[in-house]
Amino acid sequence: MPRWSPDARERLLAAALQLFAERGYDATTVAEIAERAGLTKATFFRHFPDKREVLAAGQETLSRLLSEGIASAPAGATPLAAVGAGLERAATAMTPFNRELGPLLRDAIAASAELQERDALKRVGLAAAMAHALRRRGVAETTAILAAELGGLAFKEAYATWIAEGDDQDLGALAGTALDRLRVAAGELS
Amino acid sequence: MPRWSPDARERLLAAALQLFAERGYDATTVAEIAERAGLTKATFFRHFPDKREVLAAGQETLSRLLSEGIASAPAGATPLAAVGAGLERAATAMTPFNRELGPLLRDAIAASAELQERDALKRVGLAAAMAHALRRRGVAETTAILAAELGGLAFKEAYATWIAEGDDQDLGALAGTALDRLRVAAGELS
Repeated sequence: MPRWSPDARERLLAAALQLFAERGYDATTVAEIAERAGLTKATFFRHFPDKREVLAAGQETLSRLLSEGIASAPAGATPLAAVGAGLERAATAMTPFNRELGPLLRDAIAASAELQERDALKRVGLAAAMAHALRRRGVAETTAILAAELGGLAFKEAYATWIAEGDDQDLGALAGTALDRLRVAAGELS
Repeated sequence: MPRWSPDARERLLAAALQLFAERGYDATTVAEIAERAGLTKATFFRHFPDKREVLAAGQETLSRLLSEGIASAPAGATPLAAVGAGLERAATAMTPFNRELGPLLRDAIAASAELQERDALKRVGLAAAMAHALRRRGVAETTAILAAELGGLAFKEAYATWIAEGDDQDLGALAGTALDRLRVAAGELS
């Protein structure tokens, strides 16, 4: 395969997740990932700083889309409605490729403490991006943090359903449903 | 100093945080931590599996106390009231030693991506422990997860105030105030 392939990043990601599934995260080397993808180690390192950062793929894009969606919500939207707009925007970035690899990614995370940490940090980053976008809308600090946490929980839940379900559910719609369930639950806390 | 000192764990913790502050987390070795504490590397490894796990000190104790406090809340307590009981119980484990080292710990985390990850994972673990204890009280899944997240946010906020303030505020009371603020914010989400 040509080394300048435009889909090198996706091929590296798929190769990494396949290898993590086959032999475990710890036992997989960058050289093996590159070989499986038909690319060089140098190409791997042009796309990812290290093996673990394969997991963080898409974090910047998701953060940006969440922020943009929240910023573009109508002026009168409640904090949660703005978060809903962010989730809907972010969902558009998730492709059939993401969905296909989702179960491998999920299983890799479940099997590795190191990946669980990277995943936890990714979630912290996404929540921080949402809270920041909400504050820019004038939402008070505590409310912004809380709404962002709900957004993170909703996206996590919707994503888990999306990659597990056999039929063709829409990720944005799943996220909206999850957020609505959390809104109801928030009313039952006290 | 005798190597069987009963406070070896606390001395190792204090030495580690002092060294992280002086020369950075990455540049500090386990040998240096042990030497500063007047102990051996072998003693270090009896208390911590590696350098990074110094940060996780107390996680199991906190998880247990949060769970116990939630379990012992009155039968009619709301989910958030039960979480409040858990936070109050957990606050009793935080000693003047914790408070004194708090700023060093905070600064070490702020300066190291690796420690930020371990900290994020610690928070995920504490929230999971609270959610589990709430489910055992019959709280529905989504409500349990949400109440646990609020508990985690409240403890984080209260702890940050507790280690920063000059006067003698009570951590349990600070956590109660923070949780109350989050409860109000939850009512303003939608």
